Amino acid sequence: MNEILLFRTVDQMQSTSLRWRREGVRIGLVPTMGALHEGHLSLIDLVRPHCDRLVVSVFVNPTQFGPTEDFDRYPRDLDRDMTLLADRGTDAIFAPEAREVYPAGHATFVEVEGLSSVYEGAIRPGHFRGVCTIVAKLYNIILPDVAAFGQKDAQQAAVLRKLTRDLHLPIQFLVGPTVREADGLAMSSRNSYLKADERPKATVLFRALKAGEASIRAGERQGDKVREAMRKVIDQVPEFKPDYSDIVWPESFEQVDEVRGDVLAIVAGRIGSVRLIDNLTVTV
Amino acid sequence: MNEILLFRTVDQMQSTSLRWRREGVRIGLVPTMGALHEGHLSLIDLVRPHCDRLVVSVFVNPTQFGPTEDFDRYPRDLDRDMTLLADRGTDAIFAPEAREVYPAGHATFVEVEGLSSVYEGAIRPGHFRGVCTIVAKLYNIILPDVAAFGQKDAQQAAVLRKLTRDLHLPIQFLVGPTVREADGLAMSSRNSYLKADERPKATVLFRALKAGEASIRAGERQGDKVREAMRKVIDQVPEFKPDYSDIVWPESFEQVDEVRGDVLAIVAGRIGSVRLIDNLTVTV
Repeated sequence: MNEILLFRTVDQMQSTSLRWRREGVRIGLVPTMGALHEGHLSLIDLVRPHCDRLVVSVFVNPTQFGPTEDFDRYPRDLDRDMTLLADRGTDAIFAPEAREVYPAGHATFVEVEGLSSVYEGAIRPGHFRGVCTIVAKLYNIILPDVAAFGQKDAQQAAVLRKLTRDLHLPIQFLVGPTVREADGLAMSSRNSYLKADERPKATVLFRALKAGEASIRAGERQGDKVREAMRKVIDQVPEFKPDYSDIVWPESFEQVDEVRGDVLAIVAGRIGSVRLIDNLTVTV
Repeated sequence: MNEILLFRTVDQMQSTSLRWRREGVRIGLVPTMGALHEGHLSLIDLVRPHCDRLVVSVFVNPTQFGPTEDFDRYPRDLDRDMTLLADRGTDAIFAPEAREVYPAGHATFVEVEGLSSVYEGAIRPGHFRGVCTIVAKLYNIILPDVAAFGQKDAQQAAVLRKLTRDLHLPIQFLVGPTVREADGLAMSSRNSYLKADERPKATVLFRALKAGEASIRAGERQGDKVREAMRKVIDQVPEFKPDYSDIVWPESFEQVDEVRGDVLAIVAGRIGSVRLIDNLTVTV
């Protein structure tokens, strides 16, 4: 196991980042909520060539969970995460307590309008506001020159790219491809919630996306017809309760009427108590 | 006149700031909307000893004006501002066009809850959201190690100090004292709107604040009695239409019941079409 620095306070992390910056060190950041899987680890490989020191934040951010969501049961295992990160070549972990990041009286929030209120934003009110706020904080604490996010959370990546550009942050913004299990299920920390009998059903998301892709590949250009192809797959798995399945433009998340260029197939919903989300870019 | 750099685009300014930072230069920032007076210039003197390069931003920020406010008639004279700044020892001016800072599709906003919705925030809905958003942008474009704001806009200073702390920005936050005309009127770019017959009436704000201070100095500790002393002065000038006059705690802007420690006397209102605002810290 390689040597790895662990920072538990904002001051420890920021004073190190400030020193690195003074020394001309280029800092990379991969923000995570821990419970790491190959999806996260692949982002380390993505950022590594662009930086001298790579920091992974491990923080289950309370402000991005709704009151009825899984904040309390979200998997936490910092020792395991540290081992995985050290083996993958991470220089430092920032794993603060919530009171470090949100001290009493905290009242400042960052928001991206429009994009934050559709799809995931509509299902999870306040979610993206929490995501934007924590990422703005991590940017200021870790002072990265480059940061990477997963395409698995495509709308989050779009919201954060917008935030990074709109606020003129001098940060290179990278998005790494979704990493999948052998049967196509997108890797997610929440997959661990799936019961044995639910796990095979969970491929329905990827199969719906592939059905949308196949219909486009077969020449379909009407958004509604592509949506219908996706819906057919979903309807075959009654255990899956969809929140949405759709074809949207990748930056604005507006619905696609007529397919051209890059479009994004998106799907989200529940199997039992487990919420799953996936997407696939299709280029015509 | 000393040499001074003028940056009109975000890229020009930020690439210079990034170069300065790589060279270990300590950057100071004084954000302004131009129409400079001694209040602004005194902030340059305040920041100067704390930095190697001093940047003054001159930008009439559209997002902090309400639809019926004075955005269009706000005084603009960049040549005059440049001369004043060069004479006072400013290294660079950042004076972008609005479309540089708010390109089409801009959708990201920063907000400080609570403090932003009382007094100035209640009278001017959205004002502090605009202020917070532009200052977050200026922080990211100019990358200051130290920034200074005027006590004249006490609630703005309190909101921005909160933003700077809550978002963990590694920026030293300075507040410079209000600079006044000989008769006590707080210097403001908006004083130029006052007609000749209105100008003498405008001292009512400072006189109300001084009456509040005098009542505290005389031993009064009941907030309501201090407010009454201020109100008496205001009532003598019927041309002044107050939005509020009050005694509040300097950080939270909550009303003071019983005076102790530092309290802040605040007053704002209109004379004719001119809106004026002032405050005075009183220490018991």
